[in-house]
Amino acid sequence: MWQLFQFPLCPFSRKVRLLLGEKGIGYDLVRENPWERRDEFFDLNPAGQTPVIVETEKALVLMDSGAICEYFEETVEKAPMINGTAPNRAEIRRLVAWCDQQFYGDVTAPLMFERMTKRLVHRSTPDARILREAMKNAHRHLDYLDYLLDHRTWLAGATLSLADLSAAAHLSVADYLGGIDFKGHEQARRWYAGLKSRPGFRPLLSERMEGIQPPAHYDKPDF
Amino acid sequence: MWQLFQFPLCPFSRKVRLLLGEKGIGYDLVRENPWERRDEFFDLNPAGQTPVIVETEKALVLMDSGAICEYFEETVEKAPMINGTAPNRAEIRRLVAWCDQQFYGDVTAPLMFERMTKRLVHRSTPDARILREAMKNAHRHLDYLDYLLDHRTWLAGATLSLADLSAAAHLSVADYLGGIDFKGHEQARRWYAGLKSRPGFRPLLSERMEGIQPPAHYDKPDF
Repeated sequence: MWQLFQFPLCPFSRKVRLLLGEKGIGYDLVRENPWERRDEFFDLNPAGQTPVIVETEKALVLMDSGAICEYFEETVEKAPMINGTAPNRAEIRRLVAWCDQQFYGDVTAPLMFERMTKRLVHRSTPDARILREAMKNAHRHLDYLDYLLDHRTWLAGATLSLADLSAAAHLSVADYLGGIDFKGHEQARRWYAGLKSRPGFRPLLSERMEGIQPPAHYDKPDF
Repeated sequence: MWQLFQFPLCPFSRKVRLLLGEKGIGYDLVRENPWERRDEFFDLNPAGQTPVIVETEKALVLMDSGAICEYFEETVEKAPMINGTAPNRAEIRRLVAWCDQQFYGDVTAPLMFERMTKRLVHRSTPDARILREAMKNAHRHLDYLDYLLDHRTWLAGATLSLADLSAAAHLSVADYLGGIDFKGHEQARRWYAGLKSRPGFRPLLSERMEGIQPPAHYDKPDF
């Protein structure tokens, strides 16, 4: 059995969990707060980041969400999520990188720092200017998703792919933290509603981070 | 013919160029300064980042260094750089991510900002405190390379892989900017000397960024 080291609002762990859900791979959750910098966790992953996934019977330790997703894509045939021709696969990976770098850096990361890390670790209040900037960035990035979905059923093309799972992972964390307003983003809203109702997404949406409540619409399939 | 949009000190473009060099794929260089934020470049890559590689005859535009490397790995058999069993491949990808995130964030990016961006864009002087911190981080990360090379011939195992090319890409940019001191890092020095003498690395080491001179040892195979 796989053990996944993660915390509820880690977008990179959510990406892996959505992939495992689509592929029907079971796993146990192990709670890990990377900001506590546990020595034992650094022994497991020198980068000190979640997710890490461990298969103790095979003595296998995988880390970095990209490497983990590629591993399951290569070893489990069911529900391929990096699929199609080489250019299609490049497009999927480009969009995954866009989510993990641009969307994360401009939206998810500042929201997590201001509304999660400051509360749990620094016991200080969020900076309203940074929150406003993150929400402005979210609108700009949702515009880009709208643009993609004007031409395509799913973000990278005609079929569901890791690009959708990655975008949904970041979007759901940003939404939990009150940073997402779908007004004026009908394509993105419809696409996200479709993802929210997938069986693999339901358990994630029902989890809560202690001390931080999501907005009322957060786990509703209709929002 | 491929056209690679890049600038001489872009570590992610260097990673791609080292891969293309190993695989013997020809390409023309197109100079792109992402900090100028050209509209035409944003039309090509909404993330606004180098590298972007274009094959005009096939109307193919690839971007994000990870997606580009995976594309050439999938389409060109020669000199496989993400090779071996699924766990081996996961280890290669984990180390590539470590270079592109940890080493880049702690060492390459602050050196580039302080010694390149400030000079070329802001016309201001580097912050000595930030430079010291980046060099301290470089020592810590070189310790990790030493540790890996204590057990392995190359960073991810018995054969040269994308992990080595990625680490060499970041290391070479940091070295150009005067941030690397190999004293006390004999394993890493020997490994890097071996990489420096590869044919694909020579042209990179001979290029210069206007207005910024590297230290004398920078392009020497013996250093």
